[in-house]
Amino acid sequence: VKRTLIIVAHGSRRQASNDEISELAKKVMKFANGNYDEVMCAYLEIASPSIPQAIEQCIDNNANSEELEITILPYFLAAGRHVTEDIPHEVDRVSRPLNNVNICIKPHIGSAENMAETILAISR
Amino acid sequence: VKRTLIIVAHGSRRQASNDEISELAKKVMKFANGNYDEVMCAYLEIASPSIPQAIEQCIDNNANSEELEITILPYFLAAGRHVTEDIPHEVDRVSRPLNNVNICIKPHIGSAENMAETILAISR
Repeated sequence: VKRTLIIVAHGSRRQASNDEISELAKKVMKFANGNYDEVMCAYLEIASPSIPQAIEQCIDNNANSEELEITILPYFLAAGRHVTEDIPHEVDRVSRPLNNVNICIKPHIGSAENMAETILAISR
Repeated sequence: VKRTLIIVAHGSRRQASNDEISELAKKVMKFANGNYDEVMCAYLEIASPSIPQAIEQCIDNNANSEELEITILPYFLAAGRHVTEDIPHEVDRVSRPLNNVNICIKPHIGSAENMAETILAISR
């Protein structure tokens, strides 16, 4: 099984904000420790790749793999419409056949167990 | 010295999103372990209290304290205009006298050291 994590951010007109996400994806890959073969990022709006583009790229990259697991991580602080409706809708727009591809959407980052500790750490 | 942490979120038309922040503030207070006497939240837009309202409330609450330290934590994932310009601007709108009040704006939550680990933890 090949495992890919796609970090989905909102997307910004500021290139620096989008770059923050791709840098973060690289950092996550460094810490992934065998949990993922690949870490990508995608943007819900404005920037590219879009969510379907990233998923299609990932499927193309792994055309020779027997099985592919794609994990979508909504990099959003609140469970608003973007998280509950727009991201699942974008995932459904993928135009590749999905045999042997398993796509799973995880909870948004704002619901992470350790967010309170993270706030305390950065506010020190 | 009295220490207050104010978590500043964007603010949403969805009450549930704003409630997520006030719940988070309570959780942070629980973990604060003496680092803060009080944890509040404020919203840059749409919801209340606004940033100046929260700071003024905090100053009123601590009117009898010799010294007050207010830490502002921008609960934003990217360092966009909201973080770099709008939050400092809102802090400057406080209408109480600031003698013996020290206000410090921390980096945005998206720049937290452990964000990569948090992503890996929630995507498992």
